[in-house]
Amino acid sequence: MSKQFDVLVIGGGPGGYVAAIRAAQLGFSVACCESNPYADPKGEPRLGGTCLNVGCIPSKALLHTSHLFEEAGHSFADQGITVGTPKIDVAKMMGRKSGVVTQLTSGIKGLFKKNKVTQLNGHGSFVGQGAAGWQVKVGDEVVEAKQVIIATGSKARHLPTIPVDNKIVCDNIGALEIDSVPKKLAIIGAGVIGLEMGSVWRRLGSEVTILEAMPDFLAAADQDVAKEALKVFTKQGLNINLGVKIGDVKVTKKGVSIAYTDKEGKAQKLDADRLIVSVGRIPNTDGLNADKVGVKLDERGFVQVDGHCQTGVAGIWAVGDVVRGPMLAHKAMEEGVMVAELMAGQAGHCNFDTVPWVIYTSPEIAWVGKTEQQLKAEGVAYKVGKIPFLANGRALGMGDPTGFVKMLACAQTDRILGVHIIGANASELISEGVVAMEFGAASEDLARICHAHPTLSEAVHEAALACDKRPLHF
Amino acid sequence: MSKQFDVLVIGGGPGGYVAAIRAAQLGFSVACCESNPYADPKGEPRLGGTCLNVGCIPSKALLHTSHLFEEAGHSFADQGITVGTPKIDVAKMMGRKSGVVTQLTSGIKGLFKKNKVTQLNGHGSFVGQGAAGWQVKVGDEVVEAKQVIIATGSKARHLPTIPVDNKIVCDNIGALEIDSVPKKLAIIGAGVIGLEMGSVWRRLGSEVTILEAMPDFLAAADQDVAKEALKVFTKQGLNINLGVKIGDVKVTKKGVSIAYTDKEGKAQKLDADRLIVSVGRIPNTDGLNADKVGVKLDERGFVQVDGHCQTGVAGIWAVGDVVRGPMLAHKAMEEGVMVAELMAGQAGHCNFDTVPWVIYTSPEIAWVGKTEQQLKAEGVAYKVGKIPFLANGRALGMGDPTGFVKMLACAQTDRILGVHIIGANASELISEGVVAMEFGAASEDLARICHAHPTLSEAVHEAALACDKRPLHF
Repeated sequence: MSKQFDVLVIGGGPGGYVAAIRAAQLGFSVACCESNPYADPKGEPRLGGTCLNVGCIPSKALLHTSHLFEEAGHSFADQGITVGTPKIDVAKMMGRKSGVVTQLTSGIKGLFKKNKVTQLNGHGSFVGQGAAGWQVKVGDEVVEAKQVIIATGSKARHLPTIPVDNKIVCDNIGALEIDSVPKKLAIIGAGVIGLEMGSVWRRLGSEVTILEAMPDFLAAADQDVAKEALKVFTKQGLNINLGVKIGDVKVTKKGVSIAYTDKEGKAQKLDADRLIVSVGRIPNTDGLNADKVGVKLDERGFVQVDGHCQTGVAGIWAVGDVVRGPMLAHKAMEEGVMVAELMAGQAGHCNFDTVPWVIYTSPEIAWVGKTEQQLKAEGVAYKVGKIPFLANGRALGMGDPTGFVKMLACAQTDRILGVHIIGANASELISEGVVAMEFGAASEDLARICHAHPTLSEAVHEAALACDKRPLHF
Repeated sequence: MSKQFDVLVIGGGPGGYVAAIRAAQLGFSVACCESNPYADPKGEPRLGGTCLNVGCIPSKALLHTSHLFEEAGHSFADQGITVGTPKIDVAKMMGRKSGVVTQLTSGIKGLFKKNKVTQLNGHGSFVGQGAAGWQVKVGDEVVEAKQVIIATGSKARHLPTIPVDNKIVCDNIGALEIDSVPKKLAIIGAGVIGLEMGSVWRRLGSEVTILEAMPDFLAAADQDVAKEALKVFTKQGLNINLGVKIGDVKVTKKGVSIAYTDKEGKAQKLDADRLIVSVGRIPNTDGLNADKVGVKLDERGFVQVDGHCQTGVAGIWAVGDVVRGPMLAHKAMEEGVMVAELMAGQAGHCNFDTVPWVIYTSPEIAWVGKTEQQLKAEGVAYKVGKIPFLANGRALGMGDPTGFVKMLACAQTDRILGVHIIGANASELISEGVVAMEFGAASEDLARICHAHPTLSEAVHEAALACDKRPLHF
C-alpha cells in the first residue's frame, strides 16, 4: 500500500518547506519530497532549494567575506588601521560558505522534525488519481495525498550555443564554487546574479567584464537607482557593457573566448579565464508529469495558477519560482503560507504589491512598490522625496555615504507608492517601507514617526519629509 | 536697537537646530545662538551640540573603525582573509572622526543658510521682556524675540570627589579624544556611553574594567536583553562589575587609582592609565537666567514643561535634554519640530511611547515600547515572541548570529507593546518596530507582512509569528 498524507509538497525550497511546515502546524499530515544533487553528509538531498544551496545564502556569505576583503584593502588605511596587503584563501572562504549552507539546510531538517513533516528523498512525478487522493511517484514508491503543492522552483536559463560545464563556463551553481580568483572573469547578464557574483570576484581581484543584451541597466529598478548603480559599479571597476549581442563562445586552452557585437554594432572579442552565464531563470517542471493530472503550464513553462496559487485542478496548488511573479524566496514563502492556510479553510492571502526586491551588491539596492517609470506609464500623478546618504550622519560615520533613498507618493492622497533605496544596508532599511505600505501609510505618516539617531533609517524619514518639500537635513 | 526675530532658539544641538529649521520653513524669522567651545576652522562655535560634536556622531565613527579593527583581528582568518597583525594609528582614526564631525556640523551651517536661519555666536541669557518680545542677551548684544525655545541640552554629570581633567580622567568629551590605546582603561558607569567607549578601546587592545553602582545591568532595557548583553560583553573581555561603591579616586604619576567596594562588600583597588566617568548627564542651564523671565526648573534642574514643551510662560518653550524624558537626540528633534509647528498654529505632536532607544555596541541593542518587566509591573497580560539570530540566514552569512529579537504583544488584543533587539544592525531593524507600533499594529500584522530574504529583518517577522507560537524558522 502506498504512503498516504493529507498534503504532499513537491520540492523542499523556500516555497515548499515553508508550505510544508505551515500545513503541519495547521494539523495536516505532511510530506515533502526533494531530489536535488546537493547531498548532505549522510547522502540525503539537502532541503532549502536553490536559495539555500546555490543561491541567496551562499552568495551572501561570499559577498560578506569579499566586502571585508575590500574594506581591508581600501578603507582601512583612511581609518588608521594598518594590515599589510590582504590575501584571500579561496578554499577557506568557500569552506566557510559551505558551513553556513550546511548549518541552515540541516536547520530545516530540524524544523521538519519539530513540526512533524516527513521528508521523502526522491523526485516527485505525478502518476494520476487514486482513492485516497493524488498519486505521485517519489523515487521508487507511490505516495498518495489529498492535496499536492508543486514547489519545484526554477533553474538557470542556459543559452543554446553556450554549454555550461560549471568549471570554465558556469551558471549560478558553478559561480559559487570557483576555486581560485580568475584573472579575467566574463559575465553574460547584468541581473542580480551577475552583479552579485561580479562584485564578489572583482573585490577579490578579478578583472570583471559584464555583457548585457538589454540596452537599459537594471530595467526593473527605478531608473534613478539604476543610473546611480551603473555609475558606482563602473567606478568600482566592473566593466559593464549594455546592448551587446553575444556571438560565438569558445572554450579554449586558456579559458574562454567570447565574440560579441557592442552597442555601436562593432565586433568585439573578450578573452577570460571563466565565464558566468546569468541570463535569467526558467521554471523547473522536469519530470513532474503535470499533464498526467491535468495541471497546465503556460507558454513560458510556468505552472498556471490564479492569485491564490490554485492550478485549476482541485487539490493541486503551485507556489514559488515555478509560477508567475518574481522569482524571490520570500515571495515563494508567502505563497507557501497562503496555500497552507487556504487548505485549512483560513483566509490565506499574499499581497504581491508589497513584495520587496533586493540586490546585495555594495551599495545594496532594495525597493518596494512602483518605480517612477511605472507611475509615469500608468499616468499616476506623484510626488518625489529623495535624500542622499551624504546627508546622513550614520552613513558618514561608517565611511559609506553612497546612494540615496527615494520615496514616491500619490500627488492627490499622499499615499506611499514606492520606496527605492541604494546604499549601505538597503536590504534592511526596506522593511520599514514595506510595513508602511502594508498599512497604506502616507508619506506624512512616516515623516511624523520618530527615527533613531544616528541611523541610516533617518534617510527614509527625510525622504518622507522631502515628499512634502520639508526635509530637515537636506 | 536690538536685533529682532520671531523666534530665538537658545542652543544649536539636535533639538535646537531642528526647531530653528522647521520654524524657518514655516515662515518665521529665526535666529539660533550657540556658544560651545568646539570652534570650527573659522573660530565660530560649531552647531550640532553634544550629539554631533562630542556624542553620537564621533562615537559612531570610532565604533565603526574599532569594529573593523576587531574583524581584521578575529573574523578574517575564519573567512580565508589573511592580513598581518592589525595595527591602529589612533591619531589617524581620530582625524577621520573629526573630519566626519566637521562635515556634519558645517552641513548644519549650510542648512541654516538654505532655510534662512540666522546663526548667532554667543551664550544665550534671559534679560527680561521688552516691547518686541522676550529679551535675551547673546554674547554682547540683546536680541528680542516673540518666542524663545530653550534647547541648551545637557552636560556630563561629574562626581564631586572625582575632578575631570579630560586627560587622565575623562567625561564624554575627553573619552573621544584619547590619543593612544590605554593599556588599562577604567570606566565608572555601565550606561550607553560607558559601554560604547569601553567597546571601542577594548577592541583596540585596552584591558577595560567597568564599575557600576547599580546592582542590575542596563536596568532600563528589557532584562532578557540586558542578561544577554552582559554575557556577550563579558565574553568579549569587558570586565563589568555591578553593585560597586566608588571610594577614593587618585590621579597618580602612572595614571589613576580607584578604590571601590565590590558587591560582596570587599575593598578593592583598580589601577588604570585612564578613567572615563560616565555616570549620566544633567540638564544644562548654566547662565541661562531662566528665573529672570519666570521659567521654572524642577528639583533636578530640568526646565519644567508640559507634554507640548510649554514652560508655562507664554512664548517660551523648552526641548531636548534640558527637559524631562530620555536624553536622546531624536527625541529632542521630535520636540523641536513639534514646538515649531505649534507656534505656527499646527497640530504639533510628539509620541513619547514610540521613541526608540539604541546602544551602538556590538551586538547593537535597540528597543521601542515597553519592557517585559514594565508590563509585569503594570499588570498587563502579554505574549512573547522570541527568535535568536542563530536561526537567521543573513546573520549566519555575516558570521554574526549573536542575540535575538523579542516582541511583546497584548494577550487580549495582540497589539504590539514592545520590540527588543540585541544583534547586528539592531539600530536599523528597530525602525520597522517603531512604524508598526505607530500604526497600532498587532503582532499578526507584522507576521503577515512579507520580509525580504535573506535579511536580518526576517527575525522581526519570525518574532511576530512566534507571538502566536507559529514561527516558521525556529
